[in-house]
Amino acid sequence: MFIHSVKIRVRYGETDQMGYVYYGNYAEYFEVGRVEMLRSLGLTYKDLEEEHGIIMPVTSLNIRYVRPAFYDNELKLITTLREIPGKNIIFHVEIFNAEEKMVCAGSVRLCFIDKKSGTRINTPPQISDRLKPYFS
Amino acid sequence: MFIHSVKIRVRYGETDQMGYVYYGNYAEYFEVGRVEMLRSLGLTYKDLEEEHGIIMPVTSLNIRYVRPAFYDNELKLITTLREIPGKNIIFHVEIFNAEEKMVCAGSVRLCFIDKKSGTRINTPPQISDRLKPYFS
Amino acid sequence: MFIHSVKIRVRYGETDQMGYVYYGNYAEYFEVGRVEMLRSLGLTYKDLEEEHGIIMPVTSLNIRYVRPAFYDNELKLITTLREIPGKNIIFHVEIFNAEEKMVCAGSVRLCFIDKKSGTRINTPPQISDRLKPYFS
Amino acid sequence: MFIHSVKIRVRYGETDQMGYVYYGNYAEYFEVGRVEMLRSLGLTYKDLEEEHGIIMPVTSLNIRYVRPAFYDNELKLITTLREIPGKNIIFHVEIFNAEEKMVCAGSVRLCFIDKKSGTRINTPPQISDRLKPYFS
Repeated sequence: MFIHSVKIRVRYGETDQMGYVYYGNYAEYFEVGRVEMLRSLGLTYKDLEEEHGIIMPVTSLNIRYVRPAFYDNELKLITTLREIPGKNIIFHVEIFNAEEKMVCAGSVRLCFIDKKSGTRINTPPQISDRLKPYFS
Repeated sequence: MFIHSVKIRVRYGETDQMGYVYYGNYAEYFEVGRVEMLRSLGLTYKDLEEEHGIIMPVTSLNIRYVRPAFYDNELKLITTLREIPGKNIIFHVEIFNAEEKMVCAGSVRLCFIDKKSGTRINTPPQISDRLKPYFS
Repeated sequence: MFIHSVKIRVRYGETDQMGYVYYGNYAEYFEVGRVEMLRSLGLTYKDLEEEHGIIMPVTSLNIRYVRPAFYDNELKLITTLREIPGKNIIFHVEIFNAEEKMVCAGSVRLCFIDKKSGTRINTPPQISDRLKPYFS
Repeated sequence: MFIHSVKIRVRYGETDQMGYVYYGNYAEYFEVGRVEMLRSLGLTYKDLEEEHGIIMPVTSLNIRYVRPAFYDNELKLITTLREIPGKNIIFHVEIFNAEEKMVCAGSVRLCFIDKKSGTRINTPPQISDRLKPYFS
């Protein structure tokens, strides 16, 4: 397992008229979680795309909403890789508020595409090599 | 079953640097689908909230992304209720591009909350009465 | 002068916890206004970018907010070109609610960049030729 | 003068297919700038709204875009109050990239509304008292 944690502050524009974070905005939070996880491994998604020509489209998203998050809340995102990625990489995300209560939980599955050929590839070594030490 | 169809045009700000509609933006499209479905039944979500004091928070979201949608694409959203809603209402959504190819498919589950008491309620009659003729 | 009008429906995710359309979301409405104006001239921004290799970055934005717009409001966007574009193109936008009251007014200035060379160019003939009949 | 600085990381969903931060998303960055400025004064906008019943709608926005910002860029937002606020408060914002080059500059003007009465009020003492020491 590889676990990473990052904090995020809810912006005003991310709330809706119920006063809740709009349900679609969690997808962007999930993105922050996985990007910062990769960065903690010494890898930026930006480099992956620009230097190595690999893009990572999302192939599925699941979110279960447990309780609302509100404007200005500081949320904790726990992003977890439960298994070494192969053809896909699955990030599990749990979001907690300052009272350590769960806001939502979900997962995002992405694949890897070689930009030049447009074909799907396996997890590139830039990622898998850095993850191996955590999955033994 | 109750099926509703609506078209939506992809905005520039909804794409990302891959040139794809950003995966999180489909949640807003899904919202347009269910809101327009309710409107086709003679019911606005706005009235439900303002006149009847009922809010409908989303409790889960699932999306499977099949192929990208691009800027300026005109997308067709098919929103379906497969069963008469009870404690929850589940909207199934399929999105197709102009070539009738599937872009993504998913579902959103919402519950009903009475704003005054803050408690969960069953599908209000404003919705269920209008749906009954389609589920016999 | 060239004037174009289009309607837009406020989405739930575009409101904030004041119940107003979030001030930043009008930029996207303005985009819909100018894109649909171009389309009414037989020109898509998509083609401009893909077939003619021209991108149009925004160089300035001004908005004066007069009164709030609310969820589910149907807004009317009036987009106006007051002069034939040269090095820049300036779209003036006025947004009205269903009571014909002004919601906001503003302008967006964009320039033209040749994607290949990365240099600024004048208004391409694809646009100026179509506009000339309206400015004589 | 009162000057405040905060950093922000560009998210993937904030870019558009040009690869630039979408021009409308800067409004949300501006919001982060002024919210964090208020927080540095020991004041949260959340409290202002919830405890003191004051909302701050935006009345005008101006942005001049100098150069694009890109995905994953760490941007520095400099938010400045040039004068003690009266009926309005004007936040001037400058955004710089990691090379200290200006990305954009602009200003946002907001007013103060008493939620109960719905009328405009002057800058509440919660804000003006904290600012006075900086404007003498």
